[in-house]
Amino acid sequence: MSSYSPIGPVVGIVGAGQLARMSQPPAIALGVELRVLANNPEESAARVIVDTRIGDYRDLGDLREFAKGCDVITFDHEHVPTDHIRALAANGYVVHPGADALVHAQDKAVMRERLTRIGAPCPAWARVSSADDVASFAAEHGWPVVLKAVRGGYDGRGVWVCRTPDEVAEAFATGVELMAEAFVPFDRELAVLVARSPHGQGVSYPVVETVQENGICVEVIAPAPGLDQEQSAQAQRIALTVANELGVTGLLAVELFQSERGLVVNELAMRPHNSGHWTIEGATTSQFEQHLRAVLDLPLGTPRMTAQHVVMANLLGGDDPDLFKRYEHVMAHDPGIKLHFYGKEVRPGRKIGHVTALGSNLDEVRARARHAAVYLMTGEYT
Amino acid sequence: MSSYSPIGPVVGIVGAGQLARMSQPPAIALGVELRVLANNPEESAARVIVDTRIGDYRDLGDLREFAKGCDVITFDHEHVPTDHIRALAANGYVVHPGADALVHAQDKAVMRERLTRIGAPCPAWARVSSADDVASFAAEHGWPVVLKAVRGGYDGRGVWVCRTPDEVAEAFATGVELMAEAFVPFDRELAVLVARSPHGQGVSYPVVETVQENGICVEVIAPAPGLDQEQSAQAQRIALTVANELGVTGLLAVELFQSERGLVVNELAMRPHNSGHWTIEGATTSQFEQHLRAVLDLPLGTPRMTAQHVVMANLLGGDDPDLFKRYEHVMAHDPGIKLHFYGKEVRPGRKIGHVTALGSNLDEVRARARHAAVYLMTGEYT
Repeated sequence: MSSYSPIGPVVGIVGAGQLARMSQPPAIALGVELRVLANNPEESAARVIVDTRIGDYRDLGDLREFAKGCDVITFDHEHVPTDHIRALAANGYVVHPGADALVHAQDKAVMRERLTRIGAPCPAWARVSSADDVASFAAEHGWPVVLKAVRGGYDGRGVWVCRTPDEVAEAFATGVELMAEAFVPFDRELAVLVARSPHGQGVSYPVVETVQENGICVEVIAPAPGLDQEQSAQAQRIALTVANELGVTGLLAVELFQSERGLVVNELAMRPHNSGHWTIEGATTSQFEQHLRAVLDLPLGTPRMTAQHVVMANLLGGDDPDLFKRYEHVMAHDPGIKLHFYGKEVRPGRKIGHVTALGSNLDEVRARARHAAVYLMTGEYT
Repeated sequence: MSSYSPIGPVVGIVGAGQLARMSQPPAIALGVELRVLANNPEESAARVIVDTRIGDYRDLGDLREFAKGCDVITFDHEHVPTDHIRALAANGYVVHPGADALVHAQDKAVMRERLTRIGAPCPAWARVSSADDVASFAAEHGWPVVLKAVRGGYDGRGVWVCRTPDEVAEAFATGVELMAEAFVPFDRELAVLVARSPHGQGVSYPVVETVQENGICVEVIAPAPGLDQEQSAQAQRIALTVANELGVTGLLAVELFQSERGLVVNELAMRPHNSGHWTIEGATTSQFEQHLRAVLDLPLGTPRMTAQHVVMANLLGGDDPDLFKRYEHVMAHDPGIKLHFYGKEVRPGRKIGHVTALGSNLDEVRARARHAAVYLMTGEYT
C-alpha cells in the first residue's frame, strides 16, 4: 500500500449509475479517490464524483485512457466486453473482478456450465438455437420453458417465460442468442451477498428475501423471514463456494429460488447489488464499503446487522417528475426512515431511489418502508 | 419545495473543510446538490464535490457570485464577515444560520452578553482592553484569568489561561481584541448538539463527554458516562433554549464545563461539530444529514443512538505523511472499526481524520477507538 499518495488509492469504476454513486460515501470516508467512466455528465454518479471521465465502455481505447493512473479498476455494470477486460489486465492494470470471473455474470450459459460442474444447484438448462431445440427441451422438462438472452439482460429484460411454441417464436424473433431453463415453481426468491478479496478472505451477509414485481425487485427483507438456519447456512455456503471456485474479487450476489426441491441458483452479479442496498444503514459495513475494501485487497469489514429487521423498498419512476416535494410528508411521518435518491431524471418504471426502514418489529418495519415508498412514488397515503 | 428540479435543491456551503466534505454522503443520499466555496481545489471538500467554486469568503463579490442559483447557503466555518451575510440576505438569498444568530458564534463577547441575558449559566466575564482591566477582573474573580480573542479563535488558538500579569501582557501583545473569563475548575467537558429548523422544530442529540489535549478535542464519548439524568436534561434544555432564543437555524453545538457549581457554557458553534462526528454511524440521523434537513426546513430526523456506547477518536497528523498504509492492520484487527479520512495532506497536529467504535461495553469501545487512532497516527500498537 505504500505507493499510494497521502490521499489514498484511486479506484476507477466503469459505469456511472447509482451503484457507482452509492460507492462515493464510503470512498469519502476511507479517503479513497473514485474515478468513473460515464456516458455523459448527467449520469447518477457523474453528479457526485469529481473525477468523471466521459467515454464508451465498449471502446478499448477509452478504457485504456480511463485506466491510466487507477490503482484498481472495477465495475458499475457487467456490460464491458470480456476481451477488453483481458486486454486491460494484459496491459498491467489491476481489474477486480477479473475477466475469468466476470464472464460468469456476463454469459448465462457459461455460468450454468460452471455452476453445474461445481455442483451448485441449478434448474435443468440447455443452449438452444431454434424453436425445435426448445420443443425438445420442453418434451423432457415440460412447459413453461424459461428462455433467457445469454448476454445483456437485466431487470426482467431478456427473459421470456414461454407457455406455448408461439411465445418461443417471439423470443427468437429478437435475434439474440438464447438458452432454455426449466421453470422452477418457487415459493419465494432469496439472495445472498458475499465479498471475496484477492488474497482469499470471504464474508457473507445474512440471506435476504427479495420480492419482485414484473421482473423488477421492489422490496428486500433482511434477514429472510422464517428461513431455517440450515437453509440459510446452505445459501451462504453456495455463494462462498461460487465466489471461491470462480475466483471472484469484490462482491458476488447470488439470487436463489426457494422451492420444494430446495435452493436453486437463478442469477449471479459481481458488484454491489440491489438486494444489498439495505446494508447502507442495516449493516456495520455497507456493501459499497465492502466492495471497495475487497477490490483494494484490504481486510473485509464485519457484515453484522445494525438492527433486528431491515426492509428496503425500491422507488420506481411514475408520471410525476418531482419527487422531492414529497420529502416533507415522509420525513414528518417517520423521522427514522432513510431516503436515497439517485439523482436521475424520473422515467416511468426506472429505479430512481430507495428507502430503508430498521427496527425490531418486522410488520412495522415493512409497513414503514412501504408507506414511504408508495407516498414518494404516487403521493398516495397507505 | 415544488420549485426544485427533479434532482433536488442546491445547498451552497461556504468553506470546503472536512465538515463540508462529510456533508456530501447524506447529500448524495437525499439527492441534494452541494456547492462549496473553496480557497483551492485541493481542499478536503473540493476533492469530493463536483460543483466547487474557488473564491474568497471575505470578499462580498465572491460570495454573491457563489450564491447565485443556491436554494440555501450555509457554512463550513464561522469566519464569513457578519456584514457580508447580512448583505446576502438583503439580496434575497436564504442563509442559515442567519447573521443575527451566527454573530453569537463569531463574537464571544456578544455571545456572553446574550447568554447572560437569557439566563444560561456562564463564567464571570468582562470585555477588557488593557492589562489594568484584567488586573481589576482578577482582583474580583481571582487568578487564573482566561483571556480569549473575541473573534477568530478555534481549537485552542486565541485562548490564554493566564496565571500572572506577564502572561496577560503576552496575550495583549498579539494585538487582537480580548475578553476575560473567570477560570472554571471543571471536572470534565461535555457537549450537546441540537438542531433547529426555520419553522422552529428542535431536536437534541444525547449529551457527550469531550476529552481535550492541548485545547484540541481528542476523544468524544456518547453518551457522557455516568451523567445523571437531571443534568443531562438540563444540558439539553440549555442548548435548545439557546437555539430558540438566538434563532439558530441548522445545528448548534454547545460546549459545557461540568463543575462543582454545575454546568457552565464554554463555547457555541453553529454548524456540524467535531463533538458530533460519532453520529455518522452512532445515530439514526447523522449531524451532517440533520444540518441539511434543518437548513432546507425539512422535518428533522430522529437523533436516536444506534448502539449503547459510541466513541470517536480524532486523528491528528504526525511526522508520517502516509497513513493509508496502516489501514491493513487496523481493519484486520477490528472488522467493526469505522475509519474517516479527510483527504488532507498530513501536517503535525492537524485534524486529518477520525475513527469511530460502537458497542455495548464502554471500556472495550474506548479501547478499540484508541487502538485504531494511535496505530493510524504513529504505527504503535497499544
